[in-house]
Amino acid sequence: MKDFTFTATCAIAAVLAAPALANDDLRAFSNDLFAPIPMSTPDIAGNIISRQRVDLGAMLFFDPRMSRSGLFSCQSCHNVGLGGVDGLTTSIGHGWQQGPRNSPTVYNAVFNIAQFWDGRAADLAEQAMGPVQAGVEMNNTPDRLLETLSSMEDYVAAFQEAFPGEAEPVTFQNFALAIEAFEATLTTPNSRFDQFLNGADTLNEQEIRGLQSFIDEGCAACHAGVNMGGQDYYPFGLVERPGANVLPEGDRGRFEVTRTATDDYVFRASPLRNIELTAPYFHSGVVWSLEEAVAVMGVAQLGADLSEDQIADIAAFLRTLTGEIPQVVHPVLPPSTDATPRPEPM
Amino acid sequence: MKDFTFTATCAIAAVLAAPALANDDLRAFSNDLFAPIPMSTPDIAGNIISRQRVDLGAMLFFDPRMSRSGLFSCQSCHNVGLGGVDGLTTSIGHGWQQGPRNSPTVYNAVFNIAQFWDGRAADLAEQAMGPVQAGVEMNNTPDRLLETLSSMEDYVAAFQEAFPGEAEPVTFQNFALAIEAFEATLTTPNSRFDQFLNGADTLNEQEIRGLQSFIDEGCAACHAGVNMGGQDYYPFGLVERPGANVLPEGDRGRFEVTRTATDDYVFRASPLRNIELTAPYFHSGVVWSLEEAVAVMGVAQLGADLSEDQIADIAAFLRTLTGEIPQVVHPVLPPSTDATPRPEPM
Repeated sequence: MKDFTFTATCAIAAVLAAPALANDDLRAFSNDLFAPIPMSTPDIAGNIISRQRVDLGAMLFFDPRMSRSGLFSCQSCHNVGLGGVDGLTTSIGHGWQQGPRNSPTVYNAVFNIAQFWDGRAADLAEQAMGPVQAGVEMNNTPDRLLETLSSMEDYVAAFQEAFPGEAEPVTFQNFALAIEAFEATLTTPNSRFDQFLNGADTLNEQEIRGLQSFIDEGCAACHAGVNMGGQDYYPFGLVERPGANVLPEGDRGRFEVTRTATDDYVFRASPLRNIELTAPYFHSGVVWSLEEAVAVMGVAQLGADLSEDQIADIAAFLRTLTGEIPQVVHPVLPPSTDATPRPEPM
Repeated sequence: MKDFTFTATCAIAAVLAAPALANDDLRAFSNDLFAPIPMSTPDIAGNIISRQRVDLGAMLFFDPRMSRSGLFSCQSCHNVGLGGVDGLTTSIGHGWQQGPRNSPTVYNAVFNIAQFWDGRAADLAEQAMGPVQAGVEMNNTPDRLLETLSSMEDYVAAFQEAFPGEAEPVTFQNFALAIEAFEATLTTPNSRFDQFLNGADTLNEQEIRGLQSFIDEGCAACHAGVNMGGQDYYPFGLVERPGANVLPEGDRGRFEVTRTATDDYVFRASPLRNIELTAPYFHSGVVWSLEEAVAVMGVAQLGADLSEDQIADIAAFLRTLTGEIPQVVHPVLPPSTDATPRPEPM
């Protein structure tokens, strides 16, 4: 009787332990492929993430006077309340022009190997210099932007505090560095998947199956690392090129940066952090459903006709990548002066 | 000698006391004309300023999906970081249309007798229903807006919490009430002038002279009360009609609301709180300098050719009306779902 009880107890324990053991294997393997978002703001080579620089960066990020029209700020297309994107197929810019590609999220962008869908900016500071000058976006010039900033003494003082010891701190480079410093704080740690990586059993059975499929089917070959993507470049349509609605022929991706034939229709693998918040998907921004996006990727990149159950499982897993959105206080911006260039909407 | 010392001391004391006494008289008179912004959120008849309702209102205020294009939110034209306005002559709306009038500030708008330049909305809730439907602004419909809100369970839950006990809380009326509740918190107490009203000597000599002129020249006849304006309607050009650049002939103001001849070119007197933050000025938004705005008002409303010194003094006084801007945390908005209407920029 005693033995039977002992044996039965052990058997039950073994059954109960089996999924946990499997989870631990999967966790160990996952920790080889991925990494949790750090709980604190990462360091950035060539920048100093001081409180003053972050605060100035927040002002610049939210100030629509950085655009020629006075309507657009960084926040317009990288909305901190909307997963760091604008939720549009492609962004609306100066004069109601529509941009060529879907706006990527600013959240965790600091962990990407490079910025933009084609990686044409090495870091967030270089990225910040792009949209303010793009005619289809903010349509401003560095000179006009610096004239705007220099016209407000509170901005000049904020640059002095953020870049101490510099004789002329109000520069386009420092504008970009301050925005980079602010954006470095826009990370979303502690997702349920990160808690899983750190040893907690936070994923349900479907999400575990989804993670297993994500690895087994090959998704993790491109979507790995701390951002589950954003680390390298791959042809969209590695196995089978999607239709022109998803992959417009006019946009050849990284080829336009490198002019190298092998970079034709090559894009940076999209980071998957907070993916449930950042529809619509792909550089073309035409796919609204996460499940549809998973199916498209399966066919185009893996040559895999994923089953509906697999797609549902993978999508459920991807929804565990939603982290804690940082609290952002809307900055109070200095008033324009007589020397501030007037908005030019036309 | 003793007497002399006594007399001299008294004389010095009298001289030193004289401006303070004058200030006290001016303060007493000012307290009859004006009132400080209350330190706490005011009550609103027909609304309940609960935490849940304010939080929901903040979400709605900042959500660009309230517009058809997905680009505009209340915040676009009433930027909490820019004195509650957009800093444009007239706002840019759907399809890059420009609105007919300058965007009024949302700060302290709760204290106005009615909303819009022509007072056509009785309160902030009624106001909130306007821009979302205006073709030139957000170009949405109540049905489409409610479809958007109902498609996200976090919004439905937030409405349930903000309007407890209601069977169908997601209504256009409740949308407006929640925004009104949030906007009621957007007050800016404790300006230097309010501190003066409350007994502190926070104004310098020029600002005191400006206050005296503001009263003596008759500005306070229309710009009185807690908001120093916003309480009644007056013809723009009471004494002398300004040029068509400042007073465009096509905009007949309150006449378009009441169809009464005496309301021709009648507008609500602009509230002057935080006026240094809200350029450009007037319903036409064509005057950028506060000094120029004061001069225009002098001629048009008072028939007074104010001297340059008087204008400088009054402008200096008006800059003491800048209050403490409340801290606004950018809300985190729920993600769209498959049932959320897609943005329609075109």
